[in-house]
Amino acid sequence: MNTFGTLFRLTTFGESHGPAIGGVVDGMPAGITLDLDFILSELQRRRPGKSDLTTSRNEPDTPEFLSGVLDGVTTGTPIGFIIRNRDQRSADYDSLKDLYRPSHADYTYDIKYGIRDHRGGGRSSARETAVRVVGGALAKLFLRERNITVSARLSQVGDETEPARMEELIRTVKSEGDSIGGIVSCVVKGCPAGLGEPVYDKLHAALGGAMLGINACHGFDYGAGFEGVGMKGSEQNDVFTTDEKGNITTLTNFSGGIQGGISNGQDICFRALFKPTATIMKEQRSITQNGAPTTLRATGRHDPCVALRAVPVVEAMAAMTIADFLLLSTNNRGNIL
Amino acid sequence: MNTFGTLFRLTTFGESHGPAIGGVVDGMPAGITLDLDFILSELQRRRPGKSDLTTSRNEPDTPEFLSGVLDGVTTGTPIGFIIRNRDQRSADYDSLKDLYRPSHADYTYDIKYGIRDHRGGGRSSARETAVRVVGGALAKLFLRERNITVSARLSQVGDETEPARMEELIRTVKSEGDSIGGIVSCVVKGCPAGLGEPVYDKLHAALGGAMLGINACHGFDYGAGFEGVGMKGSEQNDVFTTDEKGNITTLTNFSGGIQGGISNGQDICFRALFKPTATIMKEQRSITQNGAPTTLRATGRHDPCVALRAVPVVEAMAAMTIADFLLLSTNNRGNIL
Amino acid sequence: MNTFGTLFRLTTFGESHGPAIGGVVDGMPAGITLDLDFILSELQRRRPGKSDLTTSRNEPDTPEFLSGVLDGVTTGTPIGFIIRNRDQRSADYDSLKDLYRPSHADYTYDIKYGIRDHRGGGRSSARETAVRVVGGALAKLFLRERNITVSARLSQVGDETEPARMEELIRTVKSEGDSIGGIVSCVVKGCPAGLGEPVYDKLHAALGGAMLGINACHGFDYGAGFEGVGMKGSEQNDVFTTDEKGNITTLTNFSGGIQGGISNGQDICFRALFKPTATIMKEQRSITQNGAPTTLRATGRHDPCVALRAVPVVEAMAAMTIADFLLLSTNNRGNIL
Amino acid sequence: MNTFGTLFRLTTFGESHGPAIGGVVDGMPAGITLDLDFILSELQRRRPGKSDLTTSRNEPDTPEFLSGVLDGVTTGTPIGFIIRNRDQRSADYDSLKDLYRPSHADYTYDIKYGIRDHRGGGRSSARETAVRVVGGALAKLFLRERNITVSARLSQVGDETEPARMEELIRTVKSEGDSIGGIVSCVVKGCPAGLGEPVYDKLHAALGGAMLGINACHGFDYGAGFEGVGMKGSEQNDVFTTDEKGNITTLTNFSGGIQGGISNGQDICFRALFKPTATIMKEQRSITQNGAPTTLRATGRHDPCVALRAVPVVEAMAAMTIADFLLLSTNNRGNIL
Repeated sequence: MNTFGTLFRLTTFGESHGPAIGGVVDGMPAGITLDLDFILSELQRRRPGKSDLTTSRNEPDTPEFLSGVLDGVTTGTPIGFIIRNRDQRSADYDSLKDLYRPSHADYTYDIKYGIRDHRGGGRSSARETAVRVVGGALAKLFLRERNITVSARLSQVGDETEPARMEELIRTVKSEGDSIGGIVSCVVKGCPAGLGEPVYDKLHAALGGAMLGINACHGFDYGAGFEGVGMKGSEQNDVFTTDEKGNITTLTNFSGGIQGGISNGQDICFRALFKPTATIMKEQRSITQNGAPTTLRATGRHDPCVALRAVPVVEAMAAMTIADFLLLSTNNRGNIL
Repeated sequence: MNTFGTLFRLTTFGESHGPAIGGVVDGMPAGITLDLDFILSELQRRRPGKSDLTTSRNEPDTPEFLSGVLDGVTTGTPIGFIIRNRDQRSADYDSLKDLYRPSHADYTYDIKYGIRDHRGGGRSSARETAVRVVGGALAKLFLRERNITVSARLSQVGDETEPARMEELIRTVKSEGDSIGGIVSCVVKGCPAGLGEPVYDKLHAALGGAMLGINACHGFDYGAGFEGVGMKGSEQNDVFTTDEKGNITTLTNFSGGIQGGISNGQDICFRALFKPTATIMKEQRSITQNGAPTTLRATGRHDPCVALRAVPVVEAMAAMTIADFLLLSTNNRGNIL
Repeated sequence: MNTFGTLFRLTTFGESHGPAIGGVVDGMPAGITLDLDFILSELQRRRPGKSDLTTSRNEPDTPEFLSGVLDGVTTGTPIGFIIRNRDQRSADYDSLKDLYRPSHADYTYDIKYGIRDHRGGGRSSARETAVRVVGGALAKLFLRERNITVSARLSQVGDETEPARMEELIRTVKSEGDSIGGIVSCVVKGCPAGLGEPVYDKLHAALGGAMLGINACHGFDYGAGFEGVGMKGSEQNDVFTTDEKGNITTLTNFSGGIQGGISNGQDICFRALFKPTATIMKEQRSITQNGAPTTLRATGRHDPCVALRAVPVVEAMAAMTIADFLLLSTNNRGNIL
Repeated sequence: MNTFGTLFRLTTFGESHGPAIGGVVDGMPAGITLDLDFILSELQRRRPGKSDLTTSRNEPDTPEFLSGVLDGVTTGTPIGFIIRNRDQRSADYDSLKDLYRPSHADYTYDIKYGIRDHRGGGRSSARETAVRVVGGALAKLFLRERNITVSARLSQVGDETEPARMEELIRTVKSEGDSIGGIVSCVVKGCPAGLGEPVYDKLHAALGGAMLGINACHGFDYGAGFEGVGMKGSEQNDVFTTDEKGNITTLTNFSGGIQGGISNGQDICFRALFKPTATIMKEQRSITQNGAPTTLRATGRHDPCVALRAVPVVEAMAAMTIADFLLLSTNNRGNIL
């Protein structure tokens, strides 16, 4: 439930306004150097308060690693880590205790659990993604040894796809106290052919499930995707050929690097859609827990385009998915011990 | 790997040209009448050869139930069933033994397993979905007792969204020996609020993973989805209100019935994108297993728009997902025994 | 629930008096010859009716393989199989429909499911073990390629440990219409060092769980086991040394081939305890479903010492466990693809 | 791998000589008061250094709870906690860096991971059980609401079963610098009938797997167990009857509260065998990593009878198992939401 993955696994805990958030990475292979600078740089990429385009929450986000490492090298045992919460303005959220913010998880948590930590979104806070980024950084250290890279970028904001116009649109929306949807595009390079299971656990099904498990992600496609719905098979089929070295490759990559659920050695390309942030600075109607009408206007921090901050989270979830399938996929070939 | 679900589980086996395909449904609650007419009618919906818009393979597709049922009522033990393969024109596929069809799973299976059943796509054949439809029919029998319904429809073919024009487009494409992409839209009605896990196993992440596990499904979104990327938060937020009976509801449903990963009691609405079928009747370039250039032109059956036949499969996977979360979701509330 | 294993998985279904029992083996590596003679010989070992020491139910027990095999070689896809039930004397069980046999699963099934297939024990019938033996035979075919063998034997009946006296005791007990407990001892030879997980999924915990999942198995130990409770550490510790080739080995093997939950390359030795069969030919008191006192005297078939027939089942479960850990254990070393 | 359970799950991390050990409990129902005094008292029961019969390591063992609790009540979200390591005499272990202690996990860890934290047993240290005790205490808080109790006791040391003689034997063995095996007996009272799955996931198979996952546990039985191997069916069968209130019960309980893998409402009774502690104060022969002969004599702390300290760990693992099956078992009856 709070665990992601099968053999490379991240288990997470923590609310934004409790003492700490943290996680356990289980399945990290032994013998890999724990590159702390890299991990911190990944967290830095995700961190709010970096630019005027994201929320102003300012936290050092330094994870404390508690296990699984000896003399700076992984031992194969689980890697536990925590990140203390420091900049907690719980008072910001007192007014939200009894009301249901539109398109937030307040109502559904109450229904599910009968109790809810209202401070900063509790478990549904975006802060939880810092733990994912640590898990993803560990996965990347593993992938790095196999020359596999994962890189994502903000590719669309609203209807804009040009960087300058995307930035401009975010500024405009922010000045209005509003928010806007966006799309993150991600490419995995160097992934060997053969990853993925042919039926239910297709590689893209796992990637899609991973992305849709990120807060505010409401859509996923890969390869030609939704934009290719109007293409014909004769246009979208990827013709096989051989490259100058005689290796099998494809002339096009509308399959997004995955065929029949299994990686084919080409770049794995997918997109994750993020809806406009639910928290806006405009007055909105809502109701209290008891059903009484009320209004709210957010006064805490907010991200006008959550897709922007999701970029390193998309990479983290993709890296953990690929790491998991690397560990899983050997087995089909019986290449063991 | 060939099992879908956690507590409501379907395990499947079978290739299109072996003796039979089949499955095991584990977790079906006891005491439910096995409505065979309903199950057969669901299979009939999926069956190829029904209309001139789908492939002409003609099979009775009658499942034989082998266990888990006593006097027509489920006993809570696993329900095993098989569907014999009858209309096997294996010779149709002999010419494909050594070549890699574009955008099919031939190459990736060879890489992964070092061996592959080339007849009719083997395990990657669309025929496997008949087993999913049986599993889905059983799930629907369970959901029916709770007044939960799952209904999908073909909502887009190429760029067309009008039924008549969608049909016309499929005919045109078929006459060209080509294929075209499409979108299936699905609605789950009557689902109680509270299903889904807040972090990785969000309800929509499970639905998305389920859909992306269907052959040729290359995209998923829910609620406003990709088409809502240009909306602002102030437009897309679903304002809570109470209905005439005092029950909490929302004025709009851009959240697609799921907030924070948990169902909120509104209709659950999502879309699944299907790429154009890889098998086309036009000549295409390709290579053999040894990398030698060749050409191919399919002479077997083919579906010009696989999305059309995917409609009952989408329902089946959605029904099994909802059934699984119903069984899982109790636990968070401790309402047990 | 009806699935055993993680990467090498057996899913089973079927009641003793339904149309068929069967299973799905998922994770069998590709490229292994399906040695049908071997599989049938394994089933023959388990089959009742072979000698006058076991029940007289006489069934050919020939599995029909439905998938996962091409030209007699495994393809890496799931292997489905069924075994038809033929010799069904359902009438034998009519008198048992409304009463709870002592130490059987009748009462607990009724409590759990509210419905129960009373014919021949239904799902709790020993017949289900035929499916395990097929799964175990497939696992053995995989282990055979790595020169790993699994062999079990009946090592104790009642308090007797000498073969002749064990047989004599079974005959005596049978003539009394009674039953007696027994112990099966098993040795796995050739298992590489390094299998098993150090904390919860210790190799012996998995073997123990596998054995205790066999009907009537009420105990498990390995290495010195319960009989070594009186030994001191200085006696039971296995001193490391090197053999003539310089390989690390141990002078004794009180650890039963597993240290810290991980195989150490020595023979893996364990025992499984089987209680006396609950079905006896003597009159016993019991109650009906409504709590009314009654008596019963079994008139169907019965095994005076179920441990005798459990020998091949113990091997099957052990073989599947080792196969599963072989597939799992690579991953800790990162030796992948 | 480092996660125990399915719906009530404990994931653990930490080595005895790293900064901290800790865990994440996922699946704890919402609305339960976190009784810290009780949790600390459970840890106190397990703690070394309490008496002269156990090791003298002295640690406060106070867990810091980091999440999943609001105003002292569980919220249904994961409960993360850490316990700092304080009394670390790492220097005690320097001499062990390059040698393989007899019957320890040193050799197998090296084989499996190629690297090992030699300080205090690293991940295989008994200290890991403190985390299990916290998890078990949380499970007990859940079980307490249902009036289910779990209590274990040391029932045998060597061949002694009388408390006074057991204590005397431990003292004698300790004075010799040696160790001795022991047995812990456990009873679960108040468990409802209906828990457990009938085939592989029998309740006793889960309990057995849980016990065998405790360090040094080499055997498990339940009900009459190994000691009942000489009994006949007519003696060991538990005759059903009704009590004064008309409830169904059994005259005897040789089934140990579980029939057909499912709890029957009687006391659940099982035993866990613990081998003599591998660490002894006597000189032993061994080899170094390079195979060179050497000797060792432990100078750190040691437990002459690890079974004594295992008592609360046995309870913890049993409590978590029962909690897990409570959450799982509803589903078979469809009593949901």
